[in-house]
Amino acid sequence: MNTTTQPTRTEPTILNGVDVTRLTGTIKAIQQDPGLGDFKFRARNEWDIGGHNVATIDTFHGTRQEMEHKHPFVFDADEPAVLLGEDSGANPVEFVLAGLSGCMTTTLAYHAAGRGLKIDEIRSEYEGDIDLRGLLDIDPTVRPGYREIRVKFRVKGDIDAATVQELVRKSPVFDTLSNPVRIRVDVEKID
Amino acid sequence: MNTTTQPTRTEPTILNGVDVTRLTGTIKAIQQDPGLGDFKFRARNEWDIGGHNVATIDTFHGTRQEMEHKHPFVFDADEPAVLLGEDSGANPVEFVLAGLSGCMTTTLAYHAAGRGLKIDEIRSEYEGDIDLRGLLDIDPTVRPGYREIRVKFRVKGDIDAATVQELVRKSPVFDTLSNPVRIRVDVEKID
Repeated sequence: MNTTTQPTRTEPTILNGVDVTRLTGTIKAIQQDPGLGDFKFRARNEWDIGGHNVATIDTFHGTRQEMEHKHPFVFDADEPAVLLGEDSGANPVEFVLAGLSGCMTTTLAYHAAGRGLKIDEIRSEYEGDIDLRGLLDIDPTVRPGYREIRVKFRVKGDIDAATVQELVRKSPVFDTLSNPVRIRVDVEKID
Repeated sequence: MNTTTQPTRTEPTILNGVDVTRLTGTIKAIQQDPGLGDFKFRARNEWDIGGHNVATIDTFHGTRQEMEHKHPFVFDADEPAVLLGEDSGANPVEFVLAGLSGCMTTTLAYHAAGRGLKIDEIRSEYEGDIDLRGLLDIDPTVRPGYREIRVKFRVKGDIDAATVQELVRKSPVFDTLSNPVRIRVDVEKID
């Protein structure tokens, strides 16, 4: 039994739906053998027409093995009519917000579980600003991407707001957007 | 009639599935009234349990109006078993690659259309590296997000590889990932 005096801490195997025993084991395994933590995630995309294209996600690499999801995840991306599309899918910048939302949420649930903090509910909202003058080459001083993203979390559970602020910032997508990522592009012309 | 001597240039109304007449009109309208180009994109997210949460995308703002998609787009995010989830959806960092793929593809199709360059096929692959020592707080010098993303395009059409390289870099998601975005986070504790 844990004899800690912090009333909100417990030591269950499962907390917030996270297997804390396995989480702790994963951390120890990667501490001892950092190569186990090298993951590669992938997507492939096929253009249909106009703003419509289809992304597929199936394989990834981790713990020194090639892995695949239970089944491929397939996403239609399109643009709404105002952006000259048919609206047959979310648009690509919206996918980024969906990814940010999933990542900040999961990071909060996992890290809270690792600290023994029980969470009952997490709801969040995301809004990002894009000035089309960037994409459309109207003004070279305007960036094409998000200028700013605002996030609002509403959290119910044994965790204070400052800890939520701390934990959501550990999110890989939060870091991916907040800090520059090098993207290498190779182009092959096919006949 | 256009009297240009460049053989790959034509002036159709529709090219690459893009209504070039409307694209040109949109650019002129925003040049005259930049506020029309201020867009806001949104997502909201509700945590289920563990690594499973659900993002919904429905409304956005553009051309000084509130707008909504034909229907909401709903995305389950989860983690694969090796990352302690149930694999009931792509994981959040994979959503980012899906968004990047859709954005680079659409940006290429639209900008090529704007230049009168006909494209027949666009296929692309994305792979990004994540070192779990960042997310898991094992090494504070390791970033939680993508260290690098590699992209491979295969393009068929009346466009050369250098122009593809130029155009895909105009993508809003390419810029969002390549350069820092400010993210403001507000947290409300609810009972």
